[in-house]
Amino acid sequence: MFSNVKRLLIGPPKKLQQLREERLSKLKALPILSSDALSSVAYGYQAALSEIAFIGVAGLWIGLPIAAVIVLLLIALILSYLQVIRAYPNGGGAYAVASDQFGPIAGLVAGAALLIDYTLTVAVSVSSGIAAITTAYPSLLPWTVPLCVLAIFGIMIMNLRGLNESASIFMWPTYLFIFSIFTLEIVGFVHLSHAGWHYAQTPPFGVIPKEISVLLILRAFASGCSALTGIEAISNATPQFREPTIRNAQKTLLWLGLLLGLMFAGTSYLTYMKGLQVNPNFTLLGMLAQSYFHTGFFFYFIQFTTFAVLILAANTSYSGFPLLAALMARDRFMPRMFELRGDRLGYSNGIIVLSILAIILIVAFNGQTDALIPLYAIGVFLSFTLAQTGLVKRWMKTKPPGWLWRSAINSFGAILSAIVTVVFAVAKFSQGAWIVLVILPLIIYFGVKVRRHYQTIADDLRINITQVKPSPHKTIVIVPIAGINRVVAGTLSYALSVSDQVIAFYVGFDDEAIERMEEKWKQWNTGIRLVTARSQYRSIVRPLMRFLNTVENWEGAPDHIVVAIPQFVTRKWWHNMLHNQTSIMLRTILLYRKDIVVTTVPYHLSD
Amino acid sequence: MFSNVKRLLIGPPKKLQQLREERLSKLKALPILSSDALSSVAYGYQAALSEIAFIGVAGLWIGLPIAAVIVLLLIALILSYLQVIRAYPNGGGAYAVASDQFGPIAGLVAGAALLIDYTLTVAVSVSSGIAAITTAYPSLLPWTVPLCVLAIFGIMIMNLRGLNESASIFMWPTYLFIFSIFTLEIVGFVHLSHAGWHYAQTPPFGVIPKEISVLLILRAFASGCSALTGIEAISNATPQFREPTIRNAQKTLLWLGLLLGLMFAGTSYLTYMKGLQVNPNFTLLGMLAQSYFHTGFFFYFIQFTTFAVLILAANTSYSGFPLLAALMARDRFMPRMFELRGDRLGYSNGIIVLSILAIILIVAFNGQTDALIPLYAIGVFLSFTLAQTGLVKRWMKTKPPGWLWRSAINSFGAILSAIVTVVFAVAKFSQGAWIVLVILPLIIYFGVKVRRHYQTIADDLRINITQVKPSPHKTIVIVPIAGINRVVAGTLSYALSVSDQVIAFYVGFDDEAIERMEEKWKQWNTGIRLVTARSQYRSIVRPLMRFLNTVENWEGAPDHIVVAIPQFVTRKWWHNMLHNQTSIMLRTILLYRKDIVVTTVPYHLSD
Repeated sequence: MFSNVKRLLIGPPKKLQQLREERLSKLKALPILSSDALSSVAYGYQAALSEIAFIGVAGLWIGLPIAAVIVLLLIALILSYLQVIRAYPNGGGAYAVASDQFGPIAGLVAGAALLIDYTLTVAVSVSSGIAAITTAYPSLLPWTVPLCVLAIFGIMIMNLRGLNESASIFMWPTYLFIFSIFTLEIVGFVHLSHAGWHYAQTPPFGVIPKEISVLLILRAFASGCSALTGIEAISNATPQFREPTIRNAQKTLLWLGLLLGLMFAGTSYLTYMKGLQVNPNFTLLGMLAQSYFHTGFFFYFIQFTTFAVLILAANTSYSGFPLLAALMARDRFMPRMFELRGDRLGYSNGIIVLSILAIILIVAFNGQTDALIPLYAIGVFLSFTLAQTGLVKRWMKTKPPGWLWRSAINSFGAILSAIVTVVFAVAKFSQGAWIVLVILPLIIYFGVKVRRHYQTIADDLRINITQVKPSPHKTIVIVPIAGINRVVAGTLSYALSVSDQVIAFYVGFDDEAIERMEEKWKQWNTGIRLVTARSQYRSIVRPLMRFLNTVENWEGAPDHIVVAIPQFVTRKWWHNMLHNQTSIMLRTILLYRKDIVVTTVPYHLSD
Repeated sequence: MFSNVKRLLIGPPKKLQQLREERLSKLKALPILSSDALSSVAYGYQAALSEIAFIGVAGLWIGLPIAAVIVLLLIALILSYLQVIRAYPNGGGAYAVASDQFGPIAGLVAGAALLIDYTLTVAVSVSSGIAAITTAYPSLLPWTVPLCVLAIFGIMIMNLRGLNESASIFMWPTYLFIFSIFTLEIVGFVHLSHAGWHYAQTPPFGVIPKEISVLLILRAFASGCSALTGIEAISNATPQFREPTIRNAQKTLLWLGLLLGLMFAGTSYLTYMKGLQVNPNFTLLGMLAQSYFHTGFFFYFIQFTTFAVLILAANTSYSGFPLLAALMARDRFMPRMFELRGDRLGYSNGIIVLSILAIILIVAFNGQTDALIPLYAIGVFLSFTLAQTGLVKRWMKTKPPGWLWRSAINSFGAILSAIVTVVFAVAKFSQGAWIVLVILPLIIYFGVKVRRHYQTIADDLRINITQVKPSPHKTIVIVPIAGINRVVAGTLSYALSVSDQVIAFYVGFDDEAIERMEEKWKQWNTGIRLVTARSQYRSIVRPLMRFLNTVENWEGAPDHIVVAIPQFVTRKWWHNMLHNQTSIMLRTILLYRKDIVVTTVPYHLSD
């Protein structure tokens, strides 16, 4: 059953050769690797303003200096990451850099921060993308959460099908979004110049409202920093660029910085000039578009390209999270199941886990982007800090030409990132950042425990092949039966095939049923011993367990106690749920509770 | 792992003796059996008014005649159900009556209608209960869906723990709710009389607004009939009453009718006098309470008792649905898994399926009670119709004293119910009733198919015990291995114990790995044959399947092909997810795809 549904949704399996990726041209790399960063324009400034929204119109101007500082931070980070590209042309990101420079535990910290960050990227991008749609169609507003869940489900299915992320179709949302925002900015600035660089509704600048405090400004700044998430993607993907890879990746990163800076600064400035205030039902960017294009075609065009680029941004986490989880599983910090590739060559477990976590976040925070922001960006800036610090250490050690100014740049980047991380953790603590500060150490603790466990097991399992050899032991087979029929006969035949000690085990709910069974068994006359038990409970599990305990304590107990359970093999997939429920239950309980060999013997149903 | 979590949430297993229920006194039966019916007061009149809400104040008076007709319908149904109690003192409800009088297919129709109805009772009651809370605390409004899901989850856990529904604690919500509503009505009518039976805000009566149409009135009536859902509960539970059971059940039903009629009529009238209009953010009942008690203690008291009685009403479906599903499974209309009792003697599968369906409804309809109403009540009135018609047939056949007027009453009840069903299906079709009209036949079709399938299987499995006897066959054991270690040695030992034909099977991802393995195998020198394969995919499933196909087609192929898979038995529950992922995958695929005996051989990890 499951396999058919899966096949339908996910498609036939892929060959390993298909895995080899083509190299990216700059024109293609830019949109594909920068959707996460550029799409932050859709929520970054709004996240900052929503912290000081309660002040009203008088506080709107404070957004501008905050935006200016964020742009400066952007420039510093771009300079830093140009160095990362040079130092790590094989990519790898913060996990690789931190592991490489400071050892596995620092790597684990960076990895945990990134896993949290990837999850929040999905939740924030999807909720913000759906907000773009509900801004265009307010009647959809009550359906925010279902729409978000649907979007995540869609992205998950696409990724389980094995998405070719470098397909040209993925260029379009980003380019169209860039086009949308620049058109909006050009129209806005032309309009603004005609209006004499001042609108009637432009709020006053520079008057400090009495409600403002340093904490509020720091909070607004921290929230606004969510506009910088995703700028590390290009450096992580350096090896995917065409030759000369380093130069091409650096040029692309410069372009990203330029575009992001202009888009963020321009929309923030126009939002201020228009005097727009945060509204729970509409996005600021949508209101800005509407103030220039009303509800004309271009307004809807902007909303849809915003939606598309945000979904694409969420999708980038679907390559990042599963790959990182697989790398961490290879290093034994995560369960090995993250290393298993599905039929379609994707890391299915990572994809599914990411989707579940993102859906939990969306539901818990009711699909509200602004409510998710306090959890976001803290992981990003923590991993920025670790990557930059690692780089400084590397420059100090290898001392290449220009290492002094290189480490100066990266030190600056590391210090800035560290400051933002601390500001974020302190200012946002009570708003939700504490959740991250609790979960992050838990992931790290879990990773350490997992690694230790795998190490112990590996030592435990190692054998000296000259000494330890397989050899046969004595076995007994127990066959639970509910009556005498063709399936029971088949299962008993199997039992007789593998052992000369076979016991049929019957559980009756009353004495009469047991007597009838014993009578019938005598008539069948198979030479096989029947053991019966009466159940106080209506379940056959308990009596069977008791019986197995007894057998284990027999004198001269066999080395292997086998329980043989029949399994109906049905012709139609849905017939499966009509059978085998008891055997599934038995199997599950026996697998996890007892030192028992569990055998399922198939029986083919003719219908 | 699962078992520990389960134990924690659900508690230790119960004995069968505990199943026997105590008989109920009237004082206890009334609140416990009528919470579903009485709680309908919380949403019935609002559901009716919301259909004509768009007309505004001018349409408010139309609610009153509709409420009057619903009260008349209530009286007719109470009279009918007094007969049902006399005719079926053993209870059983519409499924039993319809099966008994018209055969299994009519029973299946009634059963399917009731299953839908139970599910909607949970969804409607929970969403309405949470609405009572959000009316009291509007800041919780954005969390409607998460709160509903949490409530359903809580009810599910309670029921999996095995709720003693007749516990005295379950009397309180209903009595407190009755007390609340009557206090509200008394205060209201006293206040109203002081005001000269007219408020300033009382809307005009009797002027027909031009927007009204017959369809709208029918829709409002149909929605209002949701106030009558649940009145069948007492007749279903007749055998639980103390002697004289019939008289006691009938007296209780009369009390239910009286209370429901007074509560529904009184609150509806006051709602009209106060000129209250439907508001998406507040319940009508809550606004009515607030209009008399402002935000004083008694307003919150009413909101909380409303919430409690609605949660209790949702809980009644948790005894109804699993029991009905188990009855239908016993009659082979439903998968047998619904017959399995959990450790705590509840029908766990029914409880879980009901919760999942209710959560899907809540999420799909965004927790909006008024949006769920068009799906509700159609199943109730369909089963009312079937039960009443069955009763008429029974009176005709058995002809007890007074059979003529008895069948007259029930015919009247059947015709009224049938009319409501049709009105509902037609008037509400486009609003959502079509969903029920699609799903109902699907459930019936599914039930028929299931029954036919089980019948075929039973015929197929029957054997002549003098002819068919179990007998041993030839077996071969295949052990998939990923290297040589203690686990592999253990699994091979088991294989050697049950068969003299054992093959180890290794999948390598490149030629080098395969060569290394073959070399090492030669050194181990076990006498067991090693077969290797190279994987184009990174999965070991495909090569194993190919190999199993080959073995099946060997000359003199064995009767049983056994695949032996090691299973790590871990000390700590969470270690389970660190191991066994590959073996779970292999086992699942082999169980459903191939004619293979699957054996799991436990290996105890020391850590």
